[in-house]
Amino acid sequence: MVPGPTLPMKIQAPKGTRDFYPKQMAWRNYILDAWRRVSVRNGFDHVDGPIFELLDLYKIKSGDGIVSELFNFEDRGQRQLALRPEFTPTLARMVAAQAHALPKPIKWFCMPNLCRAERPQRGRLREFFQWNVDLLGCDEPIADAECIFTAVDLLRELGLGPHQVRVKISHRQTVRHVLVKLGVAEDKIIDAFNLLDRRDRLERKEFVANAAALGLDETRVQRLDEIGRMVFPAGRIDQMRTQIGVDDELGDLAGLDRELTAFGISDWCEYDLGIVRGLAYYTGIVFEIHEASGAERAMAGGGRYDGLIKLFGGPDTPAVGMGMGDVVLMNVLTDKGLMPEDASPRPDVFVIAASDAAAGRVSSVAAALRRRGLHTRFSYKSTRNVGKLLKDAAAAQARHAVILDDEASQGVASVKDLASGGQTQVAIADLPAHFTG
Amino acid sequence: MVPGPTLPMKIQAPKGTRDFYPKQMAWRNYILDAWRRVSVRNGFDHVDGPIFELLDLYKIKSGDGIVSELFNFEDRGQRQLALRPEFTPTLARMVAAQAHALPKPIKWFCMPNLCRAERPQRGRLREFFQWNVDLLGCDEPIADAECIFTAVDLLRELGLGPHQVRVKISHRQTVRHVLVKLGVAEDKIIDAFNLLDRRDRLERKEFVANAAALGLDETRVQRLDEIGRMVFPAGRIDQMRTQIGVDDELGDLAGLDRELTAFGISDWCEYDLGIVRGLAYYTGIVFEIHEASGAERAMAGGGRYDGLIKLFGGPDTPAVGMGMGDVVLMNVLTDKGLMPEDASPRPDVFVIAASDAAAGRVSSVAAALRRRGLHTRFSYKSTRNVGKLLKDAAAAQARHAVILDDEASQGVASVKDLASGGQTQVAIADLPAHFTG
Repeated sequence: MVPGPTLPMKIQAPKGTRDFYPKQMAWRNYILDAWRRVSVRNGFDHVDGPIFELLDLYKIKSGDGIVSELFNFEDRGQRQLALRPEFTPTLARMVAAQAHALPKPIKWFCMPNLCRAERPQRGRLREFFQWNVDLLGCDEPIADAECIFTAVDLLRELGLGPHQVRVKISHRQTVRHVLVKLGVAEDKIIDAFNLLDRRDRLERKEFVANAAALGLDETRVQRLDEIGRMVFPAGRIDQMRTQIGVDDELGDLAGLDRELTAFGISDWCEYDLGIVRGLAYYTGIVFEIHEASGAERAMAGGGRYDGLIKLFGGPDTPAVGMGMGDVVLMNVLTDKGLMPEDASPRPDVFVIAASDAAAGRVSSVAAALRRRGLHTRFSYKSTRNVGKLLKDAAAAQARHAVILDDEASQGVASVKDLASGGQTQVAIADLPAHFTG
Repeated sequence: MVPGPTLPMKIQAPKGTRDFYPKQMAWRNYILDAWRRVSVRNGFDHVDGPIFELLDLYKIKSGDGIVSELFNFEDRGQRQLALRPEFTPTLARMVAAQAHALPKPIKWFCMPNLCRAERPQRGRLREFFQWNVDLLGCDEPIADAECIFTAVDLLRELGLGPHQVRVKISHRQTVRHVLVKLGVAEDKIIDAFNLLDRRDRLERKEFVANAAALGLDETRVQRLDEIGRMVFPAGRIDQMRTQIGVDDELGDLAGLDRELTAFGISDWCEYDLGIVRGLAYYTGIVFEIHEASGAERAMAGGGRYDGLIKLFGGPDTPAVGMGMGDVVLMNVLTDKGLMPEDASPRPDVFVIAASDAAAGRVSSVAAALRRRGLHTRFSYKSTRNVGKLLKDAAAAQARHAVILDDEASQGVASVKDLASGGQTQVAIADLPAHFTG
């Protein structure tokens, strides 16, 4: 064999990123369009920030440890910049900068692409999209509930039901009361939260040893473990009151419970004090949304973070928010057969030339239809075989074909309905009105 | 004065980037939604790639010189990565990787955010959005014309007319013929293109000196300068034939001229052999879209680049495409008063509680409306003053107010049309149907 000419090296996409060909992009749009539609109808305003920020911005919320988890670089002026690994610091910066000018409450959503320097694995990529919904300036349970409602509204919009996904809710203060009641000292509370959080990843022996270090004896360790595994249905918070033996400490959660019922989503929600969320900045309710079998990573997570805006230099501002990534969501929808096979927009019209004389009219007919907003395609082939061209129209999923033949010179075209097969004659000048009519 | 507590440092957005608060984001959506709508109706499929690529990808098309114009960084595996400064290399990589599987012609559009390490100035930012439209696998003038038509369709969609913006078209081969005819040697053609490109930034003396270096005497320099300044209306290419004294060399441009007329956009277009485009990879037509007075940077640019896919390891593939940034476009639209004052989505309904008893029903009424797709807002204030709350509804630009008062307990609400002021009674259970009709 004669060796061929040396081909240029084919460069791959970077590890952990995605190429969105038309089919994949249609799926991405299917998700992102739903995020936007549901956000708008729930009264949230769309915002966004830069794809990169000053590196220091991320240290404010997460400390120096964050640096190893993100992509950072320098500009020509030696400024340290970083690709955004999350949106919340940008949101906090933007709110802090305009805090006094912005009408309250602030209801914002965004759908940024985020970048993390992680090892790619199922459900985790180096670039992904995340839906963020935040409500600032209101500390009433209605704000917490509306944030959860918006997430549930999205899941329902995409065909999921309460038997398939669960909203698992806890409350920082309730857990704190339980821990204190068990005998955990105030200065060990953070350690105890961390222990609860890592519960499922620890051997029983390790868990007991760690709990002992918090000052808990065997009986109390067992009680802590039990409480971490209890699940109480929303709408029936009395069960929780009795079984956990808390009362006033449930104050906030009781208010939330009433609102979840009012919003009509208590069947989607349950209380689970084992939900901690790693992030230290939450101050009230926290929640995660999981596929019911628990097989996947969390689909969404959020909670109340009343201290954050102040931390970024703004005024004291109550806040609640949630984030939902596109990767796990799409995995869950795909597994359940809820992603459409083909989410691409379908052409309204496919224009066909049945003769050489008519071919010169294709662009002008297409132009007139497009100007009226009709999704119009045509063939670039030189064939005038109507059967073949109708196959191309069908392959493009077009709803109608406009066939231009020798009658086109008299200003008349045939319109074929590609679903029913029915065909009618329409004046070329009337085509736009015929389809928009 | 007593000094206040030390506030945390307020961190700014990075230089040359933008914060999109709701008002700015609504404008961005106004532009990007139009890009997408116009792309789809012109038969282009939406695609996207990663926000960063391997640095080497950008060197294939632009050489090592590109590195100083982009933001680059290393991942943990010492791979050199770069934020995308343009989309074309990603497109070429994606097409090359799937060249044999993709149906032809390939008609793709995208609207990526791009990052360039430039000094920010009017019309140029470090992060911006760019609309890309590419048609690959067809080397007929109809493809060139359709690409230009799609750009014009967008400009018209946003309210611009042919007296406000001009599509200035040239052709690499026509200019080459003119240069050869003037006596420029084949090996000086690239230098001559560069000289034409920089014409307006050079002193007359410099221009003449540079032209002399190309072997042109004073008469021929003057002729080159004249030709660079001539503008010929599209649809009347004969004028060009006569005045420039070319004939067969106009072949391709004559085909384009027929198609521009067929697409009905010749009044937007003109031929201007002074348009060169800095990019060396164009092989056929090139064009730029300018605001008619010439006061702004180019609003869009594009052309035919038949050699690029092969350069990226794919098969020989004819291609034509164009890019339009959001920054200059928005400047032009704003200057001409064509940007909407408020592009935010308007609420369909604003729910108001006129009594404490009714307040508990606000979330359930809002939830029912939102589930039916209605953009629904409500007040988070504790006031029950209907006058004040109606002011909030009007400030939110809502179309209707639903007023829940003591009659809510009998299942009835008042619906107020906020434009006409008209008010009717509607059963609460019928509200979603009332508005979706």
